[in-house]
Amino acid sequence: MGDKVNQQWRLAARPEGLIKETDFKWNEEDLPALREEEILVRVVYLSLDPTNRGWMNAGEGYLPGVGIGDVMRGIALGVIEESKNPKFEEGDIVQGMLGWQGYLISNGKGLTKLPQAPDIPLTAHFGLFGHIGLSAYFGLLEIGQPKEGETLVVSGAAGAVGSLTGQIGKIKGCRVVGIAGTDEKCSWLTDELGFDAAINYKTEDVAKTLKKHCPEGVDVFFDNVGGDILDIVLSQIKLRARIVLCGMISRYNNTKLEPGPYSLPLLIPRRARMEGFIVLDYLNRAPEAVIALAGWYAEGKIKYRVDVVDGLENAPTAVNKLFDGSNKGKLIVKVSEEPG
Amino acid sequence: MGDKVNQQWRLAARPEGLIKETDFKWNEEDLPALREEEILVRVVYLSLDPTNRGWMNAGEGYLPGVGIGDVMRGIALGVIEESKNPKFEEGDIVQGMLGWQGYLISNGKGLTKLPQAPDIPLTAHFGLFGHIGLSAYFGLLEIGQPKEGETLVVSGAAGAVGSLTGQIGKIKGCRVVGIAGTDEKCSWLTDELGFDAAINYKTEDVAKTLKKHCPEGVDVFFDNVGGDILDIVLSQIKLRARIVLCGMISRYNNTKLEPGPYSLPLLIPRRARMEGFIVLDYLNRAPEAVIALAGWYAEGKIKYRVDVVDGLENAPTAVNKLFDGSNKGKLIVKVSEEPG
Repeated sequence: MGDKVNQQWRLAARPEGLIKETDFKWNEEDLPALREEEILVRVVYLSLDPTNRGWMNAGEGYLPGVGIGDVMRGIALGVIEESKNPKFEEGDIVQGMLGWQGYLISNGKGLTKLPQAPDIPLTAHFGLFGHIGLSAYFGLLEIGQPKEGETLVVSGAAGAVGSLTGQIGKIKGCRVVGIAGTDEKCSWLTDELGFDAAINYKTEDVAKTLKKHCPEGVDVFFDNVGGDILDIVLSQIKLRARIVLCGMISRYNNTKLEPGPYSLPLLIPRRARMEGFIVLDYLNRAPEAVIALAGWYAEGKIKYRVDVVDGLENAPTAVNKLFDGSNKGKLIVKVSEEPG
Repeated sequence: MGDKVNQQWRLAARPEGLIKETDFKWNEEDLPALREEEILVRVVYLSLDPTNRGWMNAGEGYLPGVGIGDVMRGIALGVIEESKNPKFEEGDIVQGMLGWQGYLISNGKGLTKLPQAPDIPLTAHFGLFGHIGLSAYFGLLEIGQPKEGETLVVSGAAGAVGSLTGQIGKIKGCRVVGIAGTDEKCSWLTDELGFDAAINYKTEDVAKTLKKHCPEGVDVFFDNVGGDILDIVLSQIKLRARIVLCGMISRYNNTKLEPGPYSLPLLIPRRARMEGFIVLDYLNRAPEAVIALAGWYAEGKIKYRVDVVDGLENAPTAVNKLFDGSNKGKLIVKVSEEPG
């Protein structure tokens, strides 16, 4: 070895509010030679997700915060270029916490080998399968428990998880209303994905429009956003409603704690349940979700789109697209070329 | 008939904040003669409950608001003085929504006959059984699902529901911490009822003391209070915690909506569930709870105390004892003498 240089984004400071490029330090270092049991993974695609923002904070979340000076944590997939581990071969595609870097040397623990099927593009492992698909599938079906004929509302509906969630809701026979931040996104939801209605929260009165689209109230709310949107939808829940807390993207860049929803007391008379979940808890049930999602995709019942940003050097600025709403579909950084 | 006068408190105005006696109008009217199928119930004990405050508001709760000019709704028990209904006999004791009045003429619908066992005082139907016992039993066991060895925290712990809840938690093998508003109440919880610890929220730093009593965090929180207490306990929940929303007594007299807990986002990484419930949903399962409660009471495993206020005329002022924390045990108004 010694002929390969690893490029990395290391966390330089805890961001205050939105992420700045100066919160990271670009590092280049020579890759050491592999030891026994090790593999060399070349990162191809890096997934950028709202939850990355939480990992940059100090203290405990569902995962410990990334240490200052450490390579930024990130879910990614890559190709094995060299292996001294009998469980992996050169050319294998693996997924896991490869980090914001060009290469990872690993003993293989925590990495999953991905099937190489010519008709599944690599980006589908982030747009449709992987942590995105599992979040939508288990979050909606296990926590939300939608029943045929019920009304499902999804916030962050044009996001990677939200768009799949709404489509799974349609497959399960729900009336589905999405909340998103641009007219383009709203049209995509209704015209392409089959949502029954979509609300542009930046230009419409959400409470009023929601009431119009859900005159009898909301049975299941799949929330990626938190804040005011959560409060408004909560105020229109039906008896025995279920509120799935998948994320609170409106809160991730806050520099101080914000109050919770004013409508919270309504949980009592409505006998409603609000429950948080983390997709990591469902990894052992991944095959169930992947088989269902692959089948629905093959039948043309679900669609996804990806927003690919070219070059690892753009990761720190690209991640903010998740928070200003400018991404269109699953946000991915292309770190290197796909294997031929 | 015609020889009996009914005394009533009718709702005169929607209270703003704490209840004032002028929000009610004292009314006296002659009782008409019974028609076929009707019964005449003399009210003996009237239960005063925090939820009464919500019933005085306009609009929909889990029950419609009491109309202006109508007799105030109230759970009560009484004795049948006259019956033209074959299902009821003179001398039967019945419980139901008898209202804030001396007598009720009814066709019997919605009234439950109570067993007349000489060793069960009539007040036990409010202190131990009835809506109080069912709230504690089903709220804790069905919604809270405590497991042996877990830590249960109860707010409003010296109240009728809270004190039973904590004792049921002890029976189920939990470590139980109560939150109450006077040292006398806290001593009662630990010295008489077997709570492991009690926190006086008026004199102690709740966050700090809770951390001391629950160093590993809270598994189940049975909340009768809402507001700041909910926020503090929520900030100390463990993984997969369950928060049972039984009531939000801190909010019932508010004249405007208050923000929800700042700690709400923690539900996600902690995979926690917050769920509201209303005891009415469990009435059909009452026997299960009553049998368990009666058994535990007979074995000396649970205790209760009642705070009996004499005279229907005192109901509007007495109900505020629930909100200023001055009641000691289940608050009951004695409307007339127990049958001999």
